[in-house]
Amino acid sequence: MTPAQRGQLALLLEVCGTPKPGNVDRHHDYPDLRFEHFLAGAIGAYNGLVTAANGGALGSAFEDAICGMSQQTGGNTQFGALLLITPMVRTAADGDIAPDAITDVVERTTVEDAANFYRAFEHVDVAVADPPDAYEDLDVRRGSGAIEAIETRGLTLYDVMELSAPVDGVAREWTTGFDRSFDAGARLLEGDGPVPDRTARVFLELLADEPDTFIEKTHDEATATEATRRARLARDGEIHPSDLAAEFIEREINPGTTADIVAGGLFIALDRGLGI
Amino acid sequence: MTPAQRGQLALLLEVCGTPKPGNVDRHHDYPDLRFEHFLAGAIGAYNGLVTAANGGALGSAFEDAICGMSQQTGGNTQFGALLLITPMVRTAADGDIAPDAITDVVERTTVEDAANFYRAFEHVDVAVADPPDAYEDLDVRRGSGAIEAIETRGLTLYDVMELSAPVDGVAREWTTGFDRSFDAGARLLEGDGPVPDRTARVFLELLADEPDTFIEKTHDEATATEATRRARLARDGEIHPSDLAAEFIEREINPGTTADIVAGGLFIALDRGLGI
Repeated sequence: MTPAQRGQLALLLEVCGTPKPGNVDRHHDYPDLRFEHFLAGAIGAYNGLVTAANGGALGSAFEDAICGMSQQTGGNTQFGALLLITPMVRTAADGDIAPDAITDVVERTTVEDAANFYRAFEHVDVAVADPPDAYEDLDVRRGSGAIEAIETRGLTLYDVMELSAPVDGVAREWTTGFDRSFDAGARLLEGDGPVPDRTARVFLELLADEPDTFIEKTHDEATATEATRRARLARDGEIHPSDLAAEFIEREINPGTTADIVAGGLFIALDRGLGI
Repeated sequence: MTPAQRGQLALLLEVCGTPKPGNVDRHHDYPDLRFEHFLAGAIGAYNGLVTAANGGALGSAFEDAICGMSQQTGGNTQFGALLLITPMVRTAADGDIAPDAITDVVERTTVEDAANFYRAFEHVDVAVADPPDAYEDLDVRRGSGAIEAIETRGLTLYDVMELSAPVDGVAREWTTGFDRSFDAGARLLEGDGPVPDRTARVFLELLADEPDTFIEKTHDEATATEATRRARLARDGEIHPSDLAAEFIEREINPGTTADIVAGGLFIALDRGLGI
């Protein structure tokens, strides 16, 4: 299996793990965002992942992946996961995937990569936080409308991720050697039983470790902190993960960043020999 | 989405439809054949499907697809489905998919295609019926060991399918203009609601229409006839499909041929504009 195909399989395995409280998974849908949208998203992302594997520019590869992912009616399925997996595929195509190697890949991104990252937001609606006033011209919701500001400021895609890192757990991976993704990958490799069961377990552990920035954006910090407290109870066996899943879906508490990091961890684990 | 990618998505949507009594689906596993094996099988089949789309020989494309499909520990996941989808991808890459066009593709197969079809059986164990005594030298379980007999007899892959058609519902598709696959495709397009729900419904309708040859092979004719009778009750609302699913899984009654034809129908429906 090629790195691009492993990227697709990581996306599929992520959505297959259940229960992953608050997320679409093998046994849970939201009314307008359903399991099959994630299947189509993973298949559609392929061409962009191949571009990344073949050494194409990262921003353009990412935009291709998002364009392909968005050819289904559910909307945003795997934007954050692909923001992690695209540089991973690029790194794996060149050799072993390790924190230094992937950091080297993301640090070499350019202003043009940043521009194409902004273009990706035109394919799909993504929940984001309001930028600080000083960076209002860089709001990703402007799409290509922000490219002039990107160019004027001379910001690379890595710079953009650095700016977002304080409020976005996926961007933070870019600036910390993909620390939590590698941690998730190690846990997935060490786990027992079928991979979807390991995936669900690692998801709960990661959410118990740290509040989810997607919940912070779509609700608020207090809700994210409370979700992590509840996840800790589920991890420790004090509430049943399935009950927590029902509760989160009901309240539309969707720990999407944690799911993205689990997808990144699945890619790393597959790359290091995790068998299905 | 390219024809090869539509082929993969058809495989994924097929296994996603639930309940499809007796088959692995979004909510059902067998202990050693699980949902994630089908995900990995669909991703792995890609290179073979691309070979077919690019006009490569059908037998070799199919063998590549099966080789890639089998890189997971569940064993045979989509052998029959790929035997339908590979020629469909080939046909769709050249223009509209229609019974005449696909029949033209399969009728043009060669002795070498037949040889590579036999080689595909070396990648994975497939349940097959005993051949009649006069064709004992053509038993597919001989794998490449049967190629000399194929060559001596001058049999093309289409000829091999003709020989199997009386006992194998997938082979019969090749010799009947993919009749049931087109029928399934039309029903999927006409259906209501999310595609996985339509898929489950069409599966039940097809099984209610005709005994499944995979059940005939793995059990016997009486069991296959009884399964179809039970499916009719489920289709007509007299028993709940979920109860039938539990019953079939318990008795290891796996209507695999019907699932293969539904996968073929999904490809046709996607090709004709079924949206996800």
